[in-house]
Amino acid sequence: MADRVLVPWEQNLGSVPETAEGVLFDGEGEPAGLSEAVFYVMPYGRAQRVDLLARMPRLRVCQLLTAGYEHVLPALPDGVELCNGRGLHDASTAEHALALILAAQRDLPRWAADQAERTWAPHYTRSLAGSRVLIVGYGSIGEALEARLAPCECEVVRVARRARPEQGVHPVSELHRLLPEADVVVLVTPLTEETRGLVGAEELALMRDGALVVNVGRGPVLDTEALLKEGGRVRAALDVTDPEPPPAGHPLWRAPGVFITPHVAGGSDAFYPRARAFVDAQLRRWGAGEPLENVVRPGTR
Amino acid sequence: MADRVLVPWEQNLGSVPETAEGVLFDGEGEPAGLSEAVFYVMPYGRAQRVDLLARMPRLRVCQLLTAGYEHVLPALPDGVELCNGRGLHDASTAEHALALILAAQRDLPRWAADQAERTWAPHYTRSLAGSRVLIVGYGSIGEALEARLAPCECEVVRVARRARPEQGVHPVSELHRLLPEADVVVLVTPLTEETRGLVGAEELALMRDGALVVNVGRGPVLDTEALLKEGGRVRAALDVTDPEPPPAGHPLWRAPGVFITPHVAGGSDAFYPRARAFVDAQLRRWGAGEPLENVVRPGTR
Repeated sequence: MADRVLVPWEQNLGSVPETAEGVLFDGEGEPAGLSEAVFYVMPYGRAQRVDLLARMPRLRVCQLLTAGYEHVLPALPDGVELCNGRGLHDASTAEHALALILAAQRDLPRWAADQAERTWAPHYTRSLAGSRVLIVGYGSIGEALEARLAPCECEVVRVARRARPEQGVHPVSELHRLLPEADVVVLVTPLTEETRGLVGAEELALMRDGALVVNVGRGPVLDTEALLKEGGRVRAALDVTDPEPPPAGHPLWRAPGVFITPHVAGGSDAFYPRARAFVDAQLRRWGAGEPLENVVRPGTR
Repeated sequence: MADRVLVPWEQNLGSVPETAEGVLFDGEGEPAGLSEAVFYVMPYGRAQRVDLLARMPRLRVCQLLTAGYEHVLPALPDGVELCNGRGLHDASTAEHALALILAAQRDLPRWAADQAERTWAPHYTRSLAGSRVLIVGYGSIGEALEARLAPCECEVVRVARRARPEQGVHPVSELHRLLPEADVVVLVTPLTEETRGLVGAEELALMRDGALVVNVGRGPVLDTEALLKEGGRVRAALDVTDPEPPPAGHPLWRAPGVFITPHVAGGSDAFYPRARAFVDAQLRRWGAGEPLENVVRPGTR
């Protein structure tokens, strides 16, 4: 019985080593031959099928397409190498963050609402040019965002968990000192004990009237109740929310100065081609006996 | 009687030469001392007061804050030097064009509409990354836009009235050859006999399904009827329209795939500080007897 390699996209079948058999599995239904599966590329999106891991006794490699992987560890059999999707979403997420900053500064949601009412009512808006942007959680997505901000005539300030003085990165302990000078604060952190509620009542109070918070990290990094209490004094553009999604009656939907997009920063044309190409490359490395990239837990099989 | 200098902003009063008297005039009401006016900075926006030129017999310099100046020439007394606002709106307009491209590619108007309905319905969107962007009318605003597109992982193609091969600029005669390969077409041209209807039925038909036209030039450069006939096959993000504004019953308002902003590309925080600083600099040059910048018609007085 041939080794089987489960892949989410047809393109990847061409990269499966000749010694194995490719199986197209996008998360829907039941793939055949789980007992022969040696390499499993977990489908991206809602149907990740972590449950299938327990039914793959010969599995050697599990490849995720998300950067986050903690949700998989409990189900991952011993000895299986785990690779994640770090970097794959960087361009897509950074681009969406830029889109949100510009949309909020140039009042695009207001123009969309006016258009729905067939109303032409121009007014002078803010801009990104001339503003100071704090990137909180400065990692690979933060770097990709900064690259996009570079020609926009704004100032960028970098904040991460720990200081990296040689890169001009401030530690998060300086956040309170930096917030009063920021026009835009972009949250790009994962959700950890340290980042939960990182921006709450105290932090929002330190921000200027009309300053903007953009969240493309995780919803609970920003304290929703604290944001609502500001009543629009601090604006927000949120691709991730807490709760997520907000229930139909939740005040976040109609809160003044709040723009919501439904957790779409990572999933665009800027992600899928990269993800497919990355899976191809990983399969070719594996077939050639080379070390894989993005290994978050080495395997022993 | 002292020479008078009319300026739109208080900041500029500090740059009026000592030999003259500064008068704050923002377009509202009637300024005093028109008969002594030697330097007139035309207010920006609706209340330009071109009519006042005929009442300034001692005028030596007229400074506009728009790039366009043809509308002033008929009223400008002989011998008066005319300076325009070329370059002042570049950053603001280029930034708005980028905002429109990103909004259209990442479906932001759709998310704004969903938010108004308290609906969370994510879907996979296009992106700017990986796309090819044609800039039609490649001048200083086009350059400012290209600088902003540079880190966005897209390809930029430059089109202007005449070829500039050393700068990689294609002549507009190649437009039909270039349109089928474009994902985004940005119109940044002024309105002239040559640019009126530059993008019409024939041009739109050459564009891909789902391609995007962005107009931050002048409304009539894009043929509105031709766009509507495409029925959304080609999308559009328009800061300028024809007619402008569209009357309340006009089909453009609700046309599928069309996003309208009310001619706000030039007027944002990215413009006003620059404009104020430019007026200051012009007044200082004038006071020092130095040549002015942005002279579009030299004076003889």
